[in-house]
Amino acid sequence: LPRRAGGALPEDHVAAAQRRAPGVPVIVPPPPPPPAAAEPERLDGWGFRGMGFELLPSGSVILRGARYSGSEVELPGLLPWVRQALAIEIDPRDIHPSSYPPTVPEPRLPPALMEELATALPAGALTTDPEQRLRHGHGHTLEEIYAIRYDGSRISRIPDLVVYPDSPEQIAALVAIGTRHDACLVPYGGGTNVTDALRCPAEEDRPIVAVNLSRLNRIRWIDPVNRMACIEAGAVGRHLQAQLAEYGFTLGHEPDSVEFSTLGGWIATFASGMKKNRYGNIEDLVLDLEAVTALGRLSHHGTFPRESAGLDLRRWLFGSEGSLGIITSAVVKLFPLPEVQRYDALLFRDFESGIAFLHDLSRETSPPASVRLVDNLQFQLSQTLRPPAQGAALLKRRLERWVVTNLKGFAPDRMAACTLVYEGTAQDVRAQERAVRALARRHGGLRAGADNGRRGYQLTFGIAYLRDFVMRHWILGESFETAVPWSQVSTLCERVKDRLHAECARRGIAGRPFVTARVTQLYQTGACVYFYFAFYHKGLPDPVGTFLELERAARDEILLAGGSLSHHHGVGKLRRDFLPRVFSPAALAWSEAFKQAADPGNRFGIGNLSVAGPPGRPAEEPAPR
Amino acid sequence: LPRRAGGALPEDHVAAAQRRAPGVPVIVPPPPPPPAAAEPERLDGWGFRGMGFELLPSGSVILRGARYSGSEVELPGLLPWVRQALAIEIDPRDIHPSSYPPTVPEPRLPPALMEELATALPAGALTTDPEQRLRHGHGHTLEEIYAIRYDGSRISRIPDLVVYPDSPEQIAALVAIGTRHDACLVPYGGGTNVTDALRCPAEEDRPIVAVNLSRLNRIRWIDPVNRMACIEAGAVGRHLQAQLAEYGFTLGHEPDSVEFSTLGGWIATFASGMKKNRYGNIEDLVLDLEAVTALGRLSHHGTFPRESAGLDLRRWLFGSEGSLGIITSAVVKLFPLPEVQRYDALLFRDFESGIAFLHDLSRETSPPASVRLVDNLQFQLSQTLRPPAQGAALLKRRLERWVVTNLKGFAPDRMAACTLVYEGTAQDVRAQERAVRALARRHGGLRAGADNGRRGYQLTFGIAYLRDFVMRHWILGESFETAVPWSQVSTLCERVKDRLHAECARRGIAGRPFVTARVTQLYQTGACVYFYFAFYHKGLPDPVGTFLELERAARDEILLAGGSLSHHHGVGKLRRDFLPRVFSPAALAWSEAFKQAADPGNRFGIGNLSVAGPPGRPAEEPAPR
Repeated sequence: LPRRAGGALPEDHVAAAQRRAPGVPVIVPPPPPPPAAAEPERLDGWGFRGMGFELLPSGSVILRGARYSGSEVELPGLLPWVRQALAIEIDPRDIHPSSYPPTVPEPRLPPALMEELATALPAGALTTDPEQRLRHGHGHTLEEIYAIRYDGSRISRIPDLVVYPDSPEQIAALVAIGTRHDACLVPYGGGTNVTDALRCPAEEDRPIVAVNLSRLNRIRWIDPVNRMACIEAGAVGRHLQAQLAEYGFTLGHEPDSVEFSTLGGWIATFASGMKKNRYGNIEDLVLDLEAVTALGRLSHHGTFPRESAGLDLRRWLFGSEGSLGIITSAVVKLFPLPEVQRYDALLFRDFESGIAFLHDLSRETSPPASVRLVDNLQFQLSQTLRPPAQGAALLKRRLERWVVTNLKGFAPDRMAACTLVYEGTAQDVRAQERAVRALARRHGGLRAGADNGRRGYQLTFGIAYLRDFVMRHWILGESFETAVPWSQVSTLCERVKDRLHAECARRGIAGRPFVTARVTQLYQTGACVYFYFAFYHKGLPDPVGTFLELERAARDEILLAGGSLSHHHGVGKLRRDFLPRVFSPAALAWSEAFKQAADPGNRFGIGNLSVAGPPGRPAEEPAPR
Repeated sequence: LPRRAGGALPEDHVAAAQRRAPGVPVIVPPPPPPPAAAEPERLDGWGFRGMGFELLPSGSVILRGARYSGSEVELPGLLPWVRQALAIEIDPRDIHPSSYPPTVPEPRLPPALMEELATALPAGALTTDPEQRLRHGHGHTLEEIYAIRYDGSRISRIPDLVVYPDSPEQIAALVAIGTRHDACLVPYGGGTNVTDALRCPAEEDRPIVAVNLSRLNRIRWIDPVNRMACIEAGAVGRHLQAQLAEYGFTLGHEPDSVEFSTLGGWIATFASGMKKNRYGNIEDLVLDLEAVTALGRLSHHGTFPRESAGLDLRRWLFGSEGSLGIITSAVVKLFPLPEVQRYDALLFRDFESGIAFLHDLSRETSPPASVRLVDNLQFQLSQTLRPPAQGAALLKRRLERWVVTNLKGFAPDRMAACTLVYEGTAQDVRAQERAVRALARRHGGLRAGADNGRRGYQLTFGIAYLRDFVMRHWILGESFETAVPWSQVSTLCERVKDRLHAECARRGIAGRPFVTARVTQLYQTGACVYFYFAFYHKGLPDPVGTFLELERAARDEILLAGGSLSHHHGVGKLRRDFLPRVFSPAALAWSEAFKQAADPGNRFGIGNLSVAGPPGRPAEEPAPR
C-alpha cells in the first residue's frame, strides 16, 4: 500500500504547539522516511522477515539475518542443552511443518459501507487482502500464532477490511461512517500484543474494520525548551528513537517490543519499558493525548506538568485496549540523550541472593536505568546462545568459569545473573556504579563484565524469535508476567514453577516443562516478574487446549501467591475471565457502565476488558477456582 | 459528638493484609487517640481555635497561640509594610466586625429518612446543629469565609444533616438509605478546599446529608516489609504523620493544609505536597483504594507495585471531588523516616535568576524534598513577619543585609528568596547540598542559612491565618495556583500581576493590590506557581462581586499565558465554567456520561466538576472571553 506523501504539517498543529508555549522555537521535524523496503515484517510470526533461528542438519542453531549481534554464528550448544533441559530427544529433521497461510473467512462488507469508506479515505488506503486481514486479527499469543500456522479452524473471525487513514480527521470520518453503517472499528498499532487483544469476537456479526495507524507516524512538534514532543499514535518505537535522537532527545521507553510497537499501543496497554527506572513507565511519560471516540474527538487545550482538573483524558484511555476509541496522538516528555551509556553484569550465588540485592537496590539507591535478574535456567539458556569462543577468548572464558565455580564456589546449576544498563551524566553513572558495586558485594555478587551486560540486554530482541523457532520442533512456549510485593517475589517464582511442573506431570506431558523467571522492573514496594514457559507437545491430542489450561493454572497460582493480573501486558480477552477474581462486582459494574456511556453503540467492539464479553457470550463464566 | 470506641480491627482487614503478602508480619496500630480537647478548630475561619493574628492598639501585630514558632512576639514591621505595599492608610481601630454565626436555613429532613438513618448509625452519630451544618457546607474560598462572617445572604443552602459513620459498612448503608429516600450525600474530610467544593447547590431540593469521615481515621495495617499501609480516608494529615512516625515511617505528603486535610480529601482533589520532589504527589503515593459508590463498594483483591488491568479504581476516584462516591480507605506507599532533615535558604538577585536556578535544578539534579522560590514582594512580607532581633542578633542581621545589598549589590526591592528542605540519608543529603550550592553559585545565589530556610518553610502554616486576619481590616485576599511549562513561568507571573493591577485600576480600587507569586513544585517540563492576591475593599459597593471578577480575570490570564486550570486545588464549582475552554466538547460529554453512568441518581449531587451544573442551572453559561 502506498504511504501518504510528505508535506507540511497542518498549520493548526504548529498553532497548538505555539499556544502551549508562546515564543518557544518549536521544531517541526520532516515526516519520517518511508519504511525501508529492507525491513519488511514477517506475517507468519514474530519480527523482521529474514530474521529468525534455524536448526542446521549438524544440530547447530543459527540466528539468521544481520540485525542482531551474534547472528549468523553457529551455536552448537543450544540443541543439546534444550534436549537436556526439556528431557526430550529432539530430532533436527522432525519438523512440524507450517501450513501458513490458512484459509480465512470471506469479508462481509455491505457495498454502501465500502462506498462511503472509499470516498472518505485516500486512494489505496483500503484493502481486503486476506493476509493483511488475517494479520490485523491477531497478536502474538501462542494460540494465535499456532492458529495461523497449524490450525486455521481456530480462526473464525478476522477483520473484513483494513484501512490506512492519514489523519485524525479521517479517523473521525471513519467513526461517523461506522456509526451510520453499524460497523466495528479496531485500532491496529504494531500488532505485538500477547493478550488476544486483536482477536475478533467470533460472535460479532457486524462488519469489522481494522484501522491501521501506520500513516499517523509523525512527530508533530518538538519543544526543546520544555522538553516535550507531540507524536502521532502510529509512530513505531524504533523509528521514534532514531528520529528523536537526531534532535538530541530520547523518550527512554523501551518495551521488549520497541522495534514494532507504537506509541498508541503503549498507551492503550499501559506499557512498561526496560529502562523504566530512569525514564518511568508510559503513564509517567505521557503528559496529554488526543483520541477519536464514539462521543467525538477528545482533546485538551494545553499541556502542563501536572493538573488537578477532574477530567483527565489520559486516565480514560490508558489501558483501554481499543475498547473506548482510537488514540491519535500524545504529548510526551523528552529526555536529553544520555551523556554516558554503560553496561555491566553481575553473578549471584543463587536467584534469592539476586532478589535480595534488587530489593536493597530499589530502596537504598536510585537504580540504574535497567536492572534485570535472570534465574539459573535462563542464565544457562543465555550461555548456550553465546557464540562459541576460540583461542585466547576461549581461555579467558574458561578461566572466568573456573574462578566463579571453583574459587568462589558458585554452583553452575544455582547461580543467577543480573544485567545492568546505566544512563545519565558521567558523574551520575559513576556514582550509581559505585553504589551498585558496593551493594552487590554485600550480597556476594561477582562482576561479570560490560560485554555480558550488553549481550544480556540485547538478547531480549533475539530471544523474541525463539518461540516461533521451537514451535517448528513441537515445542509450545509463551511468556507472561506479573507485579508482586517484594516479600512475595521469590515464593511466587517458586510456586509458579512448581505448579506448572505438577500440572504438566498430571497431564503426562513428555519430558520436563521449561519454566524460568526473571525480575525485570523495580519499584519501592515490589517488582515485575517475567516468566517463560515451554513444553514438548508432540503426541498430545489437543496441544493448544492443554497449553491454555496450563497458562490459566499459572495465572491462578500467580494470583494465589500475591501477584497482579498483569504488570504491563494487559487483559485483552486472554485474562478477562479473571477480572471477577480481582475486582469487586461494583468495580466491574463501573467498568461496564463506563464503556456503555462512552461507546453506547459498542463501536469499538473488540471485547477487551469486558467481563460480560460480546453479545452471545454468557455473561457469567465460571470463575477459576 | 462522641467518637467511636477503640477496639479490635475487623478481622477481614487483617485477612486482607495477609492475603496481599502472606507471611509478612503486619502491624495493626491501635486506634488513634481521640482528638485532644486542646486542639479544637475554629468554625468562623481557618485553623485552630485560639490561633491567629491580632493587631494591637500599638500598631504591632502578634500571632496568638503557642503552636507555631515566632508566635506571641510583637511584629512592629508588618502594619507599616502593609500600608506601604497596599498604599492604604490602615487604622488599627477601624475593624470590619464579623457577624458570625449567620442565620442558616432550617433543615429539610423527611421523618422517614431520619428514622432510617438513626437506625443505621450509632447513637450520637447524627446532628442538625446549625453551626455544624454550616461548617460542613463550605470550604475556605474568600467568598465562603466572607459569607459566614459578613453576609449570610450569600448562604442559601447548607447540608440538612451531618452524620458521623464509623465504618465503610455504615457508609454503604447511608448510600442505600439515600437512594431509598432520594437524598444527596456529600463526603466531608478536613473542609479545607478552596474551590467551593462543599458549597451546596442552591437549587438542590433533595435532603443533603454531609458525611463526616472523622471516625474513619485508623491505620488499618502497616506492612513494614513491603512498605505499604492501609489507611482510612478520614485520617487527618497531622495525626497520620505522628502515628506513622511511631513505626519509623512517613508518607511524605505535606500539602499546606496537612494539619487539617485528610487522606480521602487528598485523593478526591489530586493533592500535591510541599515535599513532592522526594515523595511524589498523591497519585504517586496511593497504590490502591476502596470507595462506596452508587453502584456498590469498589475494591480490589490485592495491592501491587503496578498493574495493567484496564480497570483502575484510583483513576476513577482521583480528582472526583465528591461527585462519584465516598472514598473509604487507601493503600499507600511508606518511606522510612529520613535519617537527616536539613533546611537551607538562598537569595537571588531577582525572581528571574531564581527561576533559572529552579529550572536547572529540576533537570540537572534530583531536587531536594522541598524547593520554593518567593518573589520580592513575598520576600519582603516574610521579612516583616520575622520577630525583631536584638543585641548581637540585630548586629548580625544588619551585617548580613549590608553584605547582600552593598557588597553583592542585590536591590532590596528586586531580590528573591528560595527555601530548601533536604531529606534522606546523610550521604544523599550531602551530595544534594553540594549540587545545589554549585548550581546556586552559577546563578549568582547567596546562601542565607538554615534558620531562614526553616522559618520560610514553616511560615506556610502561620501565613494561612493571615487572610482571615486582614479581612477584619477591610482587606480581601485569596490564593490560587497553576502549573505551567518552564518557558512560561516568568511571563505568566508577570502577566497575572499586570492584569490584576490593570483590572483593579480600571475599577478604581483604592491603593494598590497585593499580588505575589512563588514557585512551589518542580517538574522536568515545568513548575507549579502559587499566587496570593489581596486588595482593600472598604467603600466598594459589592466587594465580593468585585473580588470574583478579579479572580476570574486572573484565571483567564493564567490560561492565556499557558497555565493550567489548576495544579492541585481542583475545579469544584469555582472553576467549572472554565472547563469548556480547556477540554473539547467530546471530553466534557465523556465526563458527563461517566458521571451519569456511575451515579445515575446524582446521589453525590454536589455539582463539582459538572459543566452542566445541577438541575435548574443553565447548561450553557457564557464562557469567559
